[in-house]
Amino acid sequence: MSSKERPGEDSLIARFFAPIAGEGALGLKDDAARLSPTPGHDLVLTVDALVERVHFLPEDSPGSIARKALGVNVSDLAAKGAEPAGFLLSLALPEDWTENWLAEFASGLGEAARDFSCPLLGGDTVKTKGPLTLSVTAVGEVPTGRMVLRTTSRIGDIVCVTGTIGDAALGLKLRSAPAWSESLSSAEKAHLADRYLHPRPRHRLAAALRDHASAAMDVSDGLAGDLAKMMRASGVSALIEAGQVPLSAAAAKAAQASPDLLDLALTGGDDYEILCIVPEKNLDSFRKEADKVGITLSVIGRVVSGHDLPVFRMNGLERRYDVGSYQHF
Amino acid sequence: MSSKERPGEDSLIARFFAPIAGEGALGLKDDAARLSPTPGHDLVLTVDALVERVHFLPEDSPGSIARKALGVNVSDLAAKGAEPAGFLLSLALPEDWTENWLAEFASGLGEAARDFSCPLLGGDTVKTKGPLTLSVTAVGEVPTGRMVLRTTSRIGDIVCVTGTIGDAALGLKLRSAPAWSESLSSAEKAHLADRYLHPRPRHRLAAALRDHASAAMDVSDGLAGDLAKMMRASGVSALIEAGQVPLSAAAAKAAQASPDLLDLALTGGDDYEILCIVPEKNLDSFRKEADKVGITLSVIGRVVSGHDLPVFRMNGLERRYDVGSYQHF
Repeated sequence: MSSKERPGEDSLIARFFAPIAGEGALGLKDDAARLSPTPGHDLVLTVDALVERVHFLPEDSPGSIARKALGVNVSDLAAKGAEPAGFLLSLALPEDWTENWLAEFASGLGEAARDFSCPLLGGDTVKTKGPLTLSVTAVGEVPTGRMVLRTTSRIGDIVCVTGTIGDAALGLKLRSAPAWSESLSSAEKAHLADRYLHPRPRHRLAAALRDHASAAMDVSDGLAGDLAKMMRASGVSALIEAGQVPLSAAAAKAAQASPDLLDLALTGGDDYEILCIVPEKNLDSFRKEADKVGITLSVIGRVVSGHDLPVFRMNGLERRYDVGSYQHF
Repeated sequence: MSSKERPGEDSLIARFFAPIAGEGALGLKDDAARLSPTPGHDLVLTVDALVERVHFLPEDSPGSIARKALGVNVSDLAAKGAEPAGFLLSLALPEDWTENWLAEFASGLGEAARDFSCPLLGGDTVKTKGPLTLSVTAVGEVPTGRMVLRTTSRIGDIVCVTGTIGDAALGLKLRSAPAWSESLSSAEKAHLADRYLHPRPRHRLAAALRDHASAAMDVSDGLAGDLAKMMRASGVSALIEAGQVPLSAAAAKAAQASPDLLDLALTGGDDYEILCIVPEKNLDSFRKEADKVGITLSVIGRVVSGHDLPVFRMNGLERRYDVGSYQHF
């Protein structure tokens, strides 16, 4: 289809995005969206950009790309203890976009918005001669003064992490069909691949984090690097038992087949789990609240004094990951 | 400088962006920003993306690009009667970025943020193999229920516009050194060029718009097209006296040298003026308020019933611009 036959921006928005938009979007027909904040709440705002071949791959389905773009932002909100309120999308489309692609993208985005309770409020669609580029700004709410920060980890507190670590990095690695992948069943491979494609933001943990955690961040650039970042921001360090870092059955099997994959699990990106620091006295109650929303918590270590990189204890050895964090830059 | 010698994302943010960030940015060291909304206010949210060679040109200075990216968003807020509260920036940098470029960009952004009273709250910086791509999400506030919409133009109301129309489109055209440019003085050419490069968002008019206008939008895709859009959204039409559309001295001179430039002025983009619909009884008071903040208002026509495209009366002829709106898509 030639570009002349394509719908203009207004008709594209009306056809694909208006049907999935929330109330505050005003039908995506105005210059801006409206959001009435809940009285007694602070807003939490975050933005993440995704570029084709950097943050996702051209062969990923449009619905997966949409879900990831929203999911990584909702994950940031969750880590701050914020309930999602809505998001804005900026979409730079390469010239070879098709209506089918856009229809599937919008449908996946609408589904993710429902799953994450985070309605579409507004957006902008432009063309680019470069790769597909998306930017999502998500807005959340926390009761005033209750945002969970990175800078407030306290010495002696427990280091916890949700879910399992390393699946996404292994899922991405799987695409090049490495030797170790032969030791995995199809279901295990599918699990890892899915974790790379489809972040599962832990927004249902937001309230429990506010009530129990002293500090938190989401794990997006690798556990080791993100932990180092949070400890540095808090002026402390941490001692981690690597054997306590939760691995899925698939990841554990992969690490057995090829032991260096444990390093990949600890340093790879795209987990979108929550790394949180919890005073010991809150641990039981936090675990109960997490159970209620179906989220598994693992204790992996403790905050200690010092300014060095966190230590990972592993088979009697101590290890520091000094380039642990994968930066998309 | 090789990419290995370049600072990583964290150090880049710390060096260039943290110094210009507002209080709610938390030093740009956390997953998200915090904004405490003013009690009794709604939030107004808007996002605009800018792509090199589509929305600005490679030869534009980094400071100008930054100012434009923020300015076009603050312009949207202004048109809704919203006071700026802050913004988030998503920046996809091509591989050939330099520290100098980024330093100038951040400096221009900081200056614009101060000028527009719209502090930097957060951002994300990624790399791209494509053109430089920016996306700004701006957040503003209006007293609850007072956001000025596009859909509420009323028959009989007056159509007004701020400032002058067409300068930016002529300023862009000037770059190809057309014959008509010879009739302009250097100062006139500089004025037009500057209007393309540096939008002047009318945020100081926000309060007066809330108090006096029945509907408003900003003029970004050309007066004729944007007016048609607002009239359609309100289910009405308009009758415009083309001779009343305010032109700068430079634009008037250009239109004299080459009469078809009047069409360009009426349909070209990037004005970032406010098109507003004002009940006749409010007009005097609105004008006084606009005067107080140094913004000129021109009456250009009236809202009429009907669903046709707005009519522009010009030298006894009536004209409808059916493809008047330039869409960046």
